[in-house]
Amino acid sequence: MSADGRQDGTRRLRGGIDLGGTKIQAVIVDPDNEPVGQARHPTPTRGGPAAVAAEMAATLTEAARAAGVATSDLVGVGVGSPGEVDPSEGTVAEARNLTDWTDPYPLAAELGRVLGTPVQLGNDVDVAVRAEFELGAGKPYKSLLGVFWGTGVGGGLILDGRQWDGRGSAGEIGHMVVKQGGRRCTCGRKGCMEAYAGRLAMELYARKLVKQGKSTKLFKIAKEQNRDRLTSGIWARAIEAKDKLAIQLIDEAIGALGTGVASAINLLDVEAIVIGGGLGVRFGEPYAKRIERAMKPHLFLDDRPPAVHLAALGDLGGAIGAALLVAGSGS
Amino acid sequence: MSADGRQDGTRRLRGGIDLGGTKIQAVIVDPDNEPVGQARHPTPTRGGPAAVAAEMAATLTEAARAAGVATSDLVGVGVGSPGEVDPSEGTVAEARNLTDWTDPYPLAAELGRVLGTPVQLGNDVDVAVRAEFELGAGKPYKSLLGVFWGTGVGGGLILDGRQWDGRGSAGEIGHMVVKQGGRRCTCGRKGCMEAYAGRLAMELYARKLVKQGKSTKLFKIAKEQNRDRLTSGIWARAIEAKDKLAIQLIDEAIGALGTGVASAINLLDVEAIVIGGGLGVRFGEPYAKRIERAMKPHLFLDDRPPAVHLAALGDLGGAIGAALLVAGSGS
Repeated sequence: MSADGRQDGTRRLRGGIDLGGTKIQAVIVDPDNEPVGQARHPTPTRGGPAAVAAEMAATLTEAARAAGVATSDLVGVGVGSPGEVDPSEGTVAEARNLTDWTDPYPLAAELGRVLGTPVQLGNDVDVAVRAEFELGAGKPYKSLLGVFWGTGVGGGLILDGRQWDGRGSAGEIGHMVVKQGGRRCTCGRKGCMEAYAGRLAMELYARKLVKQGKSTKLFKIAKEQNRDRLTSGIWARAIEAKDKLAIQLIDEAIGALGTGVASAINLLDVEAIVIGGGLGVRFGEPYAKRIERAMKPHLFLDDRPPAVHLAALGDLGGAIGAALLVAGSGS
Repeated sequence: MSADGRQDGTRRLRGGIDLGGTKIQAVIVDPDNEPVGQARHPTPTRGGPAAVAAEMAATLTEAARAAGVATSDLVGVGVGSPGEVDPSEGTVAEARNLTDWTDPYPLAAELGRVLGTPVQLGNDVDVAVRAEFELGAGKPYKSLLGVFWGTGVGGGLILDGRQWDGRGSAGEIGHMVVKQGGRRCTCGRKGCMEAYAGRLAMELYARKLVKQGKSTKLFKIAKEQNRDRLTSGIWARAIEAKDKLAIQLIDEAIGALGTGVASAINLLDVEAIVIGGGLGVRFGEPYAKRIERAMKPHLFLDDRPPAVHLAALGDLGGAIGAALLVAGSGS
């Protein structure tokens, strides 16, 4: 029964969109946050914010169709976005891992116009961490660090049951330094964890190595799949094919993740780590265990490590978390 | 006027002891936390915990004498200690930067017996951070990171006005990794910030370089001063004398501090950094500025850096903070 007393349940459905560097994931959830429809499209790499917004609307519309509702019948749609998100203005700026997205773009207004329902923006990692904390692997804990290993490496903190945002920008775990004077990061700085573990940084580094004469199947697989970006699936396929360069770069990524996450634990001593993101989810439990092992040599209290879990909501966590931005979840 | 209605103010005085790797600082404070007596002795490097406890009692007794009270007239004495502090048991174990201190030692009981007043233990960095937050450079802020640059590099966190301890051991900023595969730390791990910036690690590294044939005035100055440890004053003297090796090691220390603190800021986005500790206080404002500059290249939001302050309570902060452990401060 809906809050306004009507029997028609469709009015209580909410939409969520997770805007990633390589994919747009949309979901429609019921009041218990159970997915009742979903869709996924690749993120456009041309056309800037307008093209991305159009694709987001198309993806959400497809998910709504799968759920048997019109987008205008949704209570609202939440969006988890990378970059500088201003929820009150409804804008996103400086989405570094997307192309040509620098100036603030009125994403909420644009999507709202096309979808015919209110749109609420949030930070992509924050919403994914909130989803894991409220509904997923983080449920047993009061403090945790979410590590989202995908195009970049995002982090989110729950301390004593509440999201910790600092002055608004906490959780940039990908830009914790793991090696002074180390590899160049996509942010322009040196030695960041993301320089070794972010999928975009790994792709750029792989291209550089290929230019230097190294061989790899990575770009051949991408071509076969008609992709111009190295997706998590392509990395997984190259690893399966025992591609040496892919294996080396993933090993280095795991080393960097272990080091950086251990540093965060030494500083914060939270109860648990939840590993998600495109690569985290794709590689799954065995790689979460590898990251856990890579943390060990750097944990100050190595006899009392934090629990390490894979994100329980998997690929859908970000989109479900985005839907949590819309009031009306739960009973 | 005292709480129990007596005009005799001496009953409201409290003692505080800061147990450091090279010095023991004792202070007697009035109800407004103003120091009314103080004393400082070198930390014994022989004789284990019993010798250290005896010296702590002697230092506090000297401070009480300076304040014109007997130690048994104090409301109580607080102790800020390194190592694994168990406040309820009154024990300290694994005080790594002190010699021969591994097993739990009943420090509170032993000091209480000699001093004739209740003794309360706390973590050295936690009490120093609390002192700076309540009485010192951290007063204007609700969230801050205290960086205590001395024998080791300790950290303490205030988030939203409250000390963040995690599962009891947060704040090990010295063991955040700044360089994967880097220099060996006194903790046995590699590449920790403390491996480059901790005074003990720096001394061990300087000895190693001397064995390898490098020359330095550091140990000559120590000999002249009849010291078997390189104190902050000795490092300062060597820098003044333009000792190349000392300058190089301090430069590396500042680089490591800047990198590690920037990593912490990227993760937590707190409002302010307060730099204290033996080396921090000795080198003062110009070096705090150098650390601030060394952070810059690694700050993700470099256009909005945190405020960086030198610990306002200086050398006495740890001891004053320890005295805060004893109930009866303020009005």
